[in-house]
Amino acid sequence: MGRFVYADNAATTNVSKSVFDSMVPYLTTHYGNPSSIYSVGRDAKKAIEVARQKVAAAIGAQPTEIYFTGCGTESDNWAIKSTAELLKQKGKNQIITTNFEHHAVLHTCEHLKKHGFEIIYLPVDSEGYVSAEQVKNAITDKTALVTIMYANNEIGTIQPIREIGAVCREAGVLFHTDAVQAVGHVNIDVAADNIDMLSLSGHKIHAPKGVGALYVRKGVRLVNFIDGGAQERNRRGGTENVASIVGLGTAIEEATKDIEARMAKIREKRDRIIDTILTTVPKCRLNGGRGKRLAGNVNISFEAVEGEALLLRLDMMGICGSSGSACTSGSLDPSHVLMAIGLPHEIAHGSLRLSINEDTTDEDVDYILECVPKVITTLRAMSPIWNG
Amino acid sequence: MGRFVYADNAATTNVSKSVFDSMVPYLTTHYGNPSSIYSVGRDAKKAIEVARQKVAAAIGAQPTEIYFTGCGTESDNWAIKSTAELLKQKGKNQIITTNFEHHAVLHTCEHLKKHGFEIIYLPVDSEGYVSAEQVKNAITDKTALVTIMYANNEIGTIQPIREIGAVCREAGVLFHTDAVQAVGHVNIDVAADNIDMLSLSGHKIHAPKGVGALYVRKGVRLVNFIDGGAQERNRRGGTENVASIVGLGTAIEEATKDIEARMAKIREKRDRIIDTILTTVPKCRLNGGRGKRLAGNVNISFEAVEGEALLLRLDMMGICGSSGSACTSGSLDPSHVLMAIGLPHEIAHGSLRLSINEDTTDEDVDYILECVPKVITTLRAMSPIWNG
Ligand SMILES: Cc1ncc(COP(=O)(O)O)c(C=O)c1O
Ligand SMILES: Cc1ncc(COP(=O)(O)O)c(C=O)c1O
Repeated sequence: MGRFVYADNAATTNVSKSVFDSMVPYLTTHYGNPSSIYSVGRDAKKAIEVARQKVAAAIGAQPTEIYFTGCGTESDNWAIKSTAELLKQKGKNQIITTNFEHHAVLHTCEHLKKHGFEIIYLPVDSEGYVSAEQVKNAITDKTALVTIMYANNEIGTIQPIREIGAVCREAGVLFHTDAVQAVGHVNIDVAADNIDMLSLSGHKIHAPKGVGALYVRKGVRLVNFIDGGAQERNRRGGTENVASIVGLGTAIEEATKDIEARMAKIREKRDRIIDTILTTVPKCRLNGGRGKRLAGNVNISFEAVEGEALLLRLDMMGICGSSGSACTSGSLDPSHVLMAIGLPHEIAHGSLRLSINEDTTDEDVDYILECVPKVITTLRAMSPIWNG
Repeated sequence: MGRFVYADNAATTNVSKSVFDSMVPYLTTHYGNPSSIYSVGRDAKKAIEVARQKVAAAIGAQPTEIYFTGCGTESDNWAIKSTAELLKQKGKNQIITTNFEHHAVLHTCEHLKKHGFEIIYLPVDSEGYVSAEQVKNAITDKTALVTIMYANNEIGTIQPIREIGAVCREAGVLFHTDAVQAVGHVNIDVAADNIDMLSLSGHKIHAPKGVGALYVRKGVRLVNFIDGGAQERNRRGGTENVASIVGLGTAIEEATKDIEARMAKIREKRDRIIDTILTTVPKCRLNGGRGKRLAGNVNISFEAVEGEALLLRLDMMGICGSSGSACTSGSLDPSHVLMAIGLPHEIAHGSLRLSINEDTTDEDVDYILECVPKVITTLRAMSPIWNG
């Protein structure tokens, strides 16, 4: 078999060995229901509380401020719908967000629109940033919530969350951030960042798919989203996903350890990919600003190239990448994120996102840099619209 | 170490070896995002579709009628809240249920009550059954939904679902059933049973905690509950919990195979437990009718015994049981199910549920029958109110 380079870590990551090992007991011998009174139940309960401490520590929160959920999307739905329900009763029916959020946020907002909410979509600039100033100007006395992602999943731009949080705090408006792409990549401190609610997901940081968490600052009111049993301190019904919660605890502890040093190494490789492609391949552009950007994110548009064809050829060479986000692939619409930063349809269609991580080696980078330009040349040679 | 007898399978089950083995690849090598275009992604997608076929086959549904969720509680919330939202627009604001549903249903109904719904709680009889006649009499032109559990989690009574379904079908009212305790224990055929929506959960049938499914009959309208990406045919956002979904597929296939023969064996052991306890221990009673009852369910109340003390002593002897449901343990309220069948407070408090399964051996039963009467005698000897 040839080389296999997985460069789609923003879509999902592999479960690390240490995460897997920490889960196995809870998928085999330690199968008790955490709500049960006997010892195998109590063991499961303890394991969940240890994981909760790890999640809390990773973002500067208290364990009692963390609720486990079934995925990052559930966390987003919960935070936004809960706040909407509570504040509508006080006559606040406006939600401020951006036009390049993940669908977990955008579609939740669209749902609320049908129920009488006005959604303000702040436009991001051509580099993929929104400013605290924009947020400040948009807030009115009708504003129920500001929800802005910490880092974008397609172009990796990191938003000025601390400043946005400060603006919201000053205006007395609740602030939620979808930090699914940021946790484990950026140092997050919910207190210093002025965050009231934060969503995160396990499978972006080497925990399994199907587990997430919601941070809710002490004092912020919450309506239940999944009504049921007394789990999660009466806040989220459903027997706890013990093994995956334990896995999330292990993963987040690892992902937030030595974050600066780890990211510096990844950033170096990312920059080599970006610089080499931009200088050797004609008619391509980097999407998203270079300054405040996730260490592992590369997103480049190639003129006269069809993204899906590019991905399939790279797949045949053993390279996994994406175009647009994983959740919308299969659809023929161009990425709403790339449209938000002003790319024309046809350019947006020819985009490649590579998201590398600590496991990406120099040889992997060499291989990417060998294959991508080659495939672009081939595809362009076949293209009826290329006249480079 | 002494004998260990896990008799709390209604709270949760162990993950069977075959389920675990089927999951491992998706927690290690096959980590692709099912929405991704490249081969590791497509493999994950295929695995989900195979699991969907297995779930569908197990209940007589079509694969396109199955949606995977994060737990049974999410399935209940989704079915009930979706229908409520859709039918409220048509002026229907009444939901018919029973007074002994799981909290996943009861608390969802309470939530809807705050939003203008009237909830009709049909009383179950002293044996723990509701009749189709009661449902028929309760339906009005305001009825949006009937939601009645297939089998009760505490006392194991199996409801006349087919007849209730027929009554609903005739009245043109949607019928949802929480079948979390029934799947894998009772032969279910959604078509013959006249079921429009059905909730199930993995961890009651040897799949892991944190995965469930919702069956929605073709033609029944559905509003999304977790808004987000295009997963589950645009119906349920969130990256799919691939490993657990695969595990659910394996588990449900096994649980619905040879169901009659497997249940007959379990029933025999259950009857030996019930008969022996009822005849040897004074002042105790079986909760729930004996006829239509889950094969593995034993629920007995002992006068002048405190349930929690009973459980802790059994735990010390290596026997895991429960009193009330796992989701409400920790609370001091007596079980709402036992209250629903008319037990006085103090009797409800002294209840023991043992839920056995195919792994329960004759020796386990012997051990249970050795320990339970002994503990009851000890506790009663210490009780200030016992004068037997
Ligand atoms: C009847 C019934 N409904 C719903 C549930 C909830 O299922 P889950 O724990 O998967 O959310 C349970 C068990 O916990 C149950 O016994
Ligand atoms: C920014 C962002 N938000 C939310 C999600 C949803 O997370 P999950 O797949 O765990 O529901 C994702 C990834 O899928 C994401 O990248």
